[in-house]
Amino acid sequence: MTTHVSPPDADRAQRAARVEARLASQLGERLTRNTALREQHGRGEGLRDLAMPDLVAFPLSTEEVADIVRACAAERLPIIPFGAGTSLEGHVSAPFGGLSLDMTRMDKVLEINAESLDCRVQAGVTRLGLNAELKSLGLFFPLDPGANATLGGMAATRASGTNAVRYGTMREVVLGLTVVTPSGEVIQTGGRARKSSAGYDLTRLYIGSEGTLGVITEVAVRLFGVPEMVSSAVCQFADLQSAVGVVILALQMGLPLARIELADATTMLGFAKSAKLTEMAPLPTLFLEFHGGPKAVAEQIESFRDIADSFGAQGFQFAEREEDRTRLWKARHDAYYSGLALAPGCESLVTDACVPISALADCLKDCAAAAEASRLICPIVGHVGDGNFHMMPLFHPDHPDERARAEALAQEVGRIAQAYGGTCTGEHGIGVHKIDALVREHGPAVAVMQAIKHALDPHGLMNPGKTLPSV
Amino acid sequence: MTTHVSPPDADRAQRAARVEARLASQLGERLTRNTALREQHGRGEGLRDLAMPDLVAFPLSTEEVADIVRACAAERLPIIPFGAGTSLEGHVSAPFGGLSLDMTRMDKVLEINAESLDCRVQAGVTRLGLNAELKSLGLFFPLDPGANATLGGMAATRASGTNAVRYGTMREVVLGLTVVTPSGEVIQTGGRARKSSAGYDLTRLYIGSEGTLGVITEVAVRLFGVPEMVSSAVCQFADLQSAVGVVILALQMGLPLARIELADATTMLGFAKSAKLTEMAPLPTLFLEFHGGPKAVAEQIESFRDIADSFGAQGFQFAEREEDRTRLWKARHDAYYSGLALAPGCESLVTDACVPISALADCLKDCAAAAEASRLICPIVGHVGDGNFHMMPLFHPDHPDERARAEALAQEVGRIAQAYGGTCTGEHGIGVHKIDALVREHGPAVAVMQAIKHALDPHGLMNPGKTLPSV
Repeated sequence: MTTHVSPPDADRAQRAARVEARLASQLGERLTRNTALREQHGRGEGLRDLAMPDLVAFPLSTEEVADIVRACAAERLPIIPFGAGTSLEGHVSAPFGGLSLDMTRMDKVLEINAESLDCRVQAGVTRLGLNAELKSLGLFFPLDPGANATLGGMAATRASGTNAVRYGTMREVVLGLTVVTPSGEVIQTGGRARKSSAGYDLTRLYIGSEGTLGVITEVAVRLFGVPEMVSSAVCQFADLQSAVGVVILALQMGLPLARIELADATTMLGFAKSAKLTEMAPLPTLFLEFHGGPKAVAEQIESFRDIADSFGAQGFQFAEREEDRTRLWKARHDAYYSGLALAPGCESLVTDACVPISALADCLKDCAAAAEASRLICPIVGHVGDGNFHMMPLFHPDHPDERARAEALAQEVGRIAQAYGGTCTGEHGIGVHKIDALVREHGPAVAVMQAIKHALDPHGLMNPGKTLPSV
Repeated sequence: MTTHVSPPDADRAQRAARVEARLASQLGERLTRNTALREQHGRGEGLRDLAMPDLVAFPLSTEEVADIVRACAAERLPIIPFGAGTSLEGHVSAPFGGLSLDMTRMDKVLEINAESLDCRVQAGVTRLGLNAELKSLGLFFPLDPGANATLGGMAATRASGTNAVRYGTMREVVLGLTVVTPSGEVIQTGGRARKSSAGYDLTRLYIGSEGTLGVITEVAVRLFGVPEMVSSAVCQFADLQSAVGVVILALQMGLPLARIELADATTMLGFAKSAKLTEMAPLPTLFLEFHGGPKAVAEQIESFRDIADSFGAQGFQFAEREEDRTRLWKARHDAYYSGLALAPGCESLVTDACVPISALADCLKDCAAAAEASRLICPIVGHVGDGNFHMMPLFHPDHPDERARAEALAQEVGRIAQAYGGTCTGEHGIGVHKIDALVREHGPAVAVMQAIKHALDPHGLMNPGKTLPSV
């Protein structure tokens, strides 16, 4: 674990103290400089490097966020929005100190419009929290990044997950946002209509802006009716190329799969080791889900089996009862933790390459070769229906050489994906780790991003050190 | 027809002449100040007000666009991108003069990646042109705004059309863009991966920016496999409320309809008058399309009929053969022209309200009452699956009172939609006609849009007078 040493800034402590004094009576115990809390807010998941904020605040409302932002702006103190803390890219660390804005107490579902299939929540509502409230209405919010992230955090990183192949990413399902701008003004973006051509798409600009342009305080999203029928399945293949070949063909034929996920042999070993899915062989495995009317689901399964059989699929298992489906998907969801369990004491540096689906097999092959050369354990899971996969090089935090090899491999995976016309990040974001990769990927377009950043946050107070190279 | 009188600007003629001199040898006959061509480029469809540019250029490549933009920037001459000229909102007029950049000769399909279901085209490629090239590959580009618009124009206005309920709008299907910035730099946004979290979403920022932030010169879009089976249908209802009730229920039940379009009784009269669909009664009518495997389509139709029957549907007609489907949809596509045919010599001011689907019935009722009060003929068609409908108040251009009533009604329709939580424009954009409505809809967020505009186009040269109030 590395501890980030902020640039010496004696003045900053005084500015933080003045912000604290200004907000103390309003926030009471919801504003703190307790060290344990600051430490907890100084890092996310993934690389566990610590960079502590000076203060942590727990606002309850958009108005309070605006008050806090104005107080920080007056003292030029950085602001770092913090959701569930499950970012893998260092988004929530505070390399320049400042105030960590913990949104988790803004956890109210504000309205559910069952008739028009939308809802509005505070940014700290988690996807499981929202789905618990929706269940009795026969509705669900499909996005599922594995972690029980907050909707604000998912919007800020343009998250997606296992259902994106059918239901889209945060880019597609968010209808509108409430945002506190860097100067502390409250704006509404988007609206409740499913589509709009009214002016610049600020909703999509804030989605994926990683807290660098303002604080997302409310999120309106589309909802979906729970499908009449849901059927899950797994099947296994002799090699990765066959598994990927099935995915490409299924997508080309337009099968409306709801989920199609890949786990490689190493990942399956991890599942077995964590006592999940012990009955399955350590072979490349596809996890599938089919949604629709009973006849449509039967038709999809039949078409899928035809394709899978032609690539030598084995060990088909189907699960229609909810508890059986849950067991299959729980294993897939916990892949990050069962991956870590393959080498106790290790940390991981999760990659996030995403390529055109036709390039997926070749890209995976090149990345597997790079992984082998690194001599690290590297389980792979993937949202292969989107061409997105995560390789998890495991390294021991006390072995600088292992860490260096893991970091080099992660960079290499990004470069390989870019060479295939893809991106270094499909859903985790840039954070602190991928700024160089962003520049490589988008070239002169990064200057346009910087111009927008400078126009909207001229003093660089919103989550500094993340997403873009500093000007 | 009103002719816009530009503010007197003796200097502008000289600046235009210098731009012309600078580009003459490079562009030859592809740069002109021919009056007929300038007039043709001085207005779109919809309100036929004329505001002529000083010059019209026909670039062939991104590099030429960059050269033209640099020449105009050096002389501070406005640039107005021009696609098929089918905008209904005055986007292509030149109220401050300048150079109209006609993109229609940039009409090459640059690459089709059948395996990964994407392609890249020059901005002047039309949707029908693209689909002609895709046909033999079993692929199609689904977006269909009626007019044979260019993909660049569709991106610039965030267009959608009849298939959006299933396939999304330009916001969802565009993967990336090539853009010439206001200073003449060429940038690439997005990429070929289906999803990305790499930095700010410039793709979505330029989509819907109506030529005010740069010139879109290339567009990469997702493609889709032609469904195994396509079945079209129409059915009629005693009143609008019943037709809309069917749509709401079908969406809530998650029926994956590919198209669900509404035409009101007046529109059906127009279809009959233009010798299209003469056999159908002048009653509110739904036009439908079902895509999928044969069993899935049969299941969808069965479910849909159950819902429709419960609302008293009559006159169901099904069409599976392509020529029969084409006839049905041709009528729907030509609704704008058959609407105009209801009152020969009239023009129309097409509204574009879009509301949450649960509010659609009430919103339509209020708008119909406003239409009746206006004493104008007002056919209504709608992409009702998205909550989007177009009312077309017809007025005679020589009757200022009729035009005033049409304009007041159009404003009122926008206000009604906004009061129901919707937008004044679902897919046509702001242009010159809806700037006040945008301010009403987005309030302080408009200042954020203006800050972005100012940062990226500090001299205000890109399509001035459109989209945003001037600062």
